[in-house]
Amino acid sequence: MERSPHADRFAEIIGAAHVLTDASDQAPYLTEWRDLYQGVTSMVLRPGSTEEVSAVMTYAYQHDLKVVPQGGNTGLVGGQIPQETGDEIVLSLSRLNKVRAVDPVGFTIIVESGVVLETLQNEAEKVDRLFPLSLGAQGSCQIGGNISTNAGGTSVLAYGNTRDLVLGLEVILPTGEIWNGLRTLRKDNTGYDLKQLFIGGEGTLGIITAASLKLFPKPKKMEAAFVGLPDPHAALKLFTLAKAQAGPVLTGFEIMPRIGVEFCLNHLDGARDPLEGSHAWYVLMELSSGSDAFPVRDLLEGILGDAFEDGLVEDAAFAQNLGQVQDFWHIRHGMSEVQKAEGGSIKHDVSVPVALIPDFLDKAAAAVEAFVPGCRPVPFGHIGDGNIHFNVSQPVGADKAAYLTHWDDMNAIVHGIVQDFGGSISAEHGIGRLKRSLLKEVKTDIELDLMQRIKSAFDPKGLLNPERVL
Amino acid sequence: MERSPHADRFAEIIGAAHVLTDASDQAPYLTEWRDLYQGVTSMVLRPGSTEEVSAVMTYAYQHDLKVVPQGGNTGLVGGQIPQETGDEIVLSLSRLNKVRAVDPVGFTIIVESGVVLETLQNEAEKVDRLFPLSLGAQGSCQIGGNISTNAGGTSVLAYGNTRDLVLGLEVILPTGEIWNGLRTLRKDNTGYDLKQLFIGGEGTLGIITAASLKLFPKPKKMEAAFVGLPDPHAALKLFTLAKAQAGPVLTGFEIMPRIGVEFCLNHLDGARDPLEGSHAWYVLMELSSGSDAFPVRDLLEGILGDAFEDGLVEDAAFAQNLGQVQDFWHIRHGMSEVQKAEGGSIKHDVSVPVALIPDFLDKAAAAVEAFVPGCRPVPFGHIGDGNIHFNVSQPVGADKAAYLTHWDDMNAIVHGIVQDFGGSISAEHGIGRLKRSLLKEVKTDIELDLMQRIKSAFDPKGLLNPERVL
Repeated sequence: MERSPHADRFAEIIGAAHVLTDASDQAPYLTEWRDLYQGVTSMVLRPGSTEEVSAVMTYAYQHDLKVVPQGGNTGLVGGQIPQETGDEIVLSLSRLNKVRAVDPVGFTIIVESGVVLETLQNEAEKVDRLFPLSLGAQGSCQIGGNISTNAGGTSVLAYGNTRDLVLGLEVILPTGEIWNGLRTLRKDNTGYDLKQLFIGGEGTLGIITAASLKLFPKPKKMEAAFVGLPDPHAALKLFTLAKAQAGPVLTGFEIMPRIGVEFCLNHLDGARDPLEGSHAWYVLMELSSGSDAFPVRDLLEGILGDAFEDGLVEDAAFAQNLGQVQDFWHIRHGMSEVQKAEGGSIKHDVSVPVALIPDFLDKAAAAVEAFVPGCRPVPFGHIGDGNIHFNVSQPVGADKAAYLTHWDDMNAIVHGIVQDFGGSISAEHGIGRLKRSLLKEVKTDIELDLMQRIKSAFDPKGLLNPERVL
Repeated sequence: MERSPHADRFAEIIGAAHVLTDASDQAPYLTEWRDLYQGVTSMVLRPGSTEEVSAVMTYAYQHDLKVVPQGGNTGLVGGQIPQETGDEIVLSLSRLNKVRAVDPVGFTIIVESGVVLETLQNEAEKVDRLFPLSLGAQGSCQIGGNISTNAGGTSVLAYGNTRDLVLGLEVILPTGEIWNGLRTLRKDNTGYDLKQLFIGGEGTLGIITAASLKLFPKPKKMEAAFVGLPDPHAALKLFTLAKAQAGPVLTGFEIMPRIGVEFCLNHLDGARDPLEGSHAWYVLMELSSGSDAFPVRDLLEGILGDAFEDGLVEDAAFAQNLGQVQDFWHIRHGMSEVQKAEGGSIKHDVSVPVALIPDFLDKAAAAVEAFVPGCRPVPFGHIGDGNIHFNVSQPVGADKAAYLTHWDDMNAIVHGIVQDFGGSISAEHGIGRLKRSLLKEVKTDIELDLMQRIKSAFDPKGLLNPERVL
C-alpha cells in the first residue's frame, strides 16, 4: 500500500522501528492462522508502553483513524485481522510484555496485556501458585486477547472463564484516555463494575494494556480416569454424581465419542487406547487437590464404583502416574487436529444448559445426519460447562470441497437446535467478524440496542475494532 | 401526602390493593432499619409479576415519574429509601416471590427477585444443593436486592461475591422494556455481558425481576478451629498457609481482636471463650468438603500444626461437633451487634489487597487513636477477602453523642489510609445515598464519566433510583 501520511507522526510517538509498513514485516499480523481471513493495512503499530498506546489512540481519534487491537493473533472469529479494505491500522500489544508484580501471599499477579499465556502460567509456577487458564494456543496467545475474548479452555469447570480470573484492568479508551482500574481487591462495591464491559468486549470498547489477575494454590495431587460409557445420558449422570461428591476437586470432565478416539488412534502420534474394549462414548475425568492429605485416588475410585453399581459406566482406566494423566489429555487435546486427516469438518462452538447436553447431542446428530447422509458427527468437549465442540466430519470418500459448501446450512440447523435449547452459538470463541451476522439472529432487539448504546457511549466515532461484534 | 393523580392508573395496572397510599401501610417501606433515613412517598406499588413491573415502568417513564425499587429493605446505604422530598414512588418487588425452576442435575435455580435469601437457601437444600450466599439479613433480604448490591457475606472466600453466583437476569429497563437474559449457561460469549451492569448497579440502570443462579454441592463435612495469635501479621501468614494447602476447601477465615471477643463474652447470650488464655487476636478458620472421603479434620490439624511450629499460633480450639462450629460462628456473627452495648461506634466497610491487611490495621488503629485518644478500634472481618469492618468504639465513659460527631472526620482519616493502600471505601455495602459524595472523592474523573455515560445510555431521563451512586 501507499505510505500513509500518518506513519511519520506515529514514528515520532513510538519510534520508526515499530511502525511496520513493509508487506513482509506486516505478514504475521495479517494472516489468520486457519486462512479464513487475509487482512490489508497501511501500517502495523507496535507501541512499547501504556503511555504510547494512549498517545497512538489520542492521535487516531483526532484523525478519525480506525484501529484494530491485536494480541497473539490466535483468535478464531477474525476479530484481530484488519478488513480487506485496508483502512484499519493494526495495533499490536506484543511489546507490552512485562510482569509488573507478583503477590503469592495475596494470590494475585499484575501483567501487561502482551504477556503470553504460557509465560504467565510459568510466572505463577515460580512462586508455587497456579494461573489456571489453559487452552490449545497458550504458547502464543496473549493474556490481553484472552481477556478481551473471555477465553474458556479446559479449566473452566473448577476455576471459571477468564472473566472470573480478572480483578482489575488498565484500559486505553477509544479517545486515548487511560483508565487505571488495576486494583487487586477481592471486594469492591463502589459503582458500576466497568471492567466487565472490556472483558469479552473483543476490543470494541477499549484496549486492555494490563490486568491484575487471581492466582490459586498449585495442585499437588492429580488423578484421572478414562471411562467408557454407553451414551451421553450416562455421562451426564456421572458428572452430577462426581460434582456432588468432589465439588471443586473435580477439575476436568470431558466427553468424547468413539469415532473421535478412533481418529486419534489412527492419526495422532503417541495415542494409545486406554481401554481394552470399544465403547460408544468416553469421559476423561480429572480430580486434583492442593492438599497432600486428601486421598484423591480413593475418591475417584469411589465415585466410579458408585457409577458402576448404577450401571452408568462400562469400564474405566486409572492413570497410574502423572505421565498417564498426560496421555489421557493427549487424546482429548488431539481431538480437534485429527479431524483434518479425515477430510472436511464443519464446526460449531456451542453451549446449552448442562442438563440438556444429552438431548441436544441426540437431536443435533440426527439432524445433521438427515441433512448430509453419511456425515460423521464428532462432538466433544466440556460437558461440565455445557460446552460442546459439535464438529461434523464429511462422509467417508466424499469430496471435501463439495461437503464444505454445506457449512452455512449445517450451521443454521445446529444453531437452530441450540436456540431451541436456550443455548449459545458462541460459547468460547466470541463473535468477531465470523459470527457478526449470526448475532443479529440470536439476540433480541433490546439486547442489540443495549449493546449499541454502550458502544456509542464508549466509542462515539466508532473507530475501535469497527464492524466486529455489532 | 395528597393522593397522586397517577394512583388510580397504577391501581388499574396492578390492582388497588397493591397501591399503598396510607401512611400506616407505607411505614415498613419508608423506615431504614438503622434509622439513618426516613423516606416520604406518594405511593408504594407492589406489582405481582414481571409484566406488571413492566407496565408500571412504562407508565412511569411516559409521565416522568421517579421510581425507587425496593427488595427486603435491609440495605445499609439508603439506596432503597425514597427521598424526603416525597417525589419518588417506591416499587416493592416482594410479591415476585416464585421459584421458577430448580435443576439439581445442572446445578442451577431460577427465582424471582422477591424471594427471600433464606427461602432460596432452603430451596437448594431440598435438592441436596447449596446456595452459598450467606449474611446477617438473610431472613428478610431478597435476592434481587442482593444482586443489585452485589452482596458479600461470609462465604465469599470459597464461592465469590453475589456477582459470581449469577448466570442470567430478567430486567425491566427504565423505559419499561423487558430484557430476558435468564439463561442458565456456564459459557456464552455472544456480545457484551449485559447482566454485569445490573449486578451491583444498585437499581439505577434497571429493575431485576428474576435471576438464574449457580448451585453447588452441599458440604457434608465441616470442621472449624478458633485460633489465638499474637497479631494480624501472624494471621495473614496463617491464611496464606491454609489457602495453599486447603484451596477451595478453606471456606471461612475471619479475624477478630481480643476486645471484640470480650464484648461478646460480656454482652452476647450464649457466648463462651473457646480458649483458656487471652490472646491479642483470633482467627475463626473453617474447612468444609462435599466428600465424606476427605479427612478434613486431619488437614485442619496439619495446617495448624505447621503454623504452631512456625510460631504463628499461640493456641487453638477445635470444634468437636457441628454445634461447636456454630458456637464459634456465634461469636463472629455477634461481633457487630455487641458494639452497641459499649456506646457509640463509628463504622467503616473497607477492603485492601489481602497482603496489606496487617499494615493497614496497624496504621488505621494508630491514626484513629491519635485522633480520639482512648477510642477502641474493634476491626474484624473477612481477612481472606481483604475486607475489614473497621469499627471504632467510643472511649470508656465518653459521651456517645459527642463521640459520634467525629463520624465524618474519622471516616475521612480511615478512608484516606484505605486509598493509600489501593483499597475500597465500600467493600460490601455499595454507595446508595450514604456514600454518594464520597464516590466523587475516590473515583477518577474518567471513571465517573464512564459511569455517567452508562447511566445516560440506559436511563436517559434519569428516573430510576435517581441521586443514588452517581
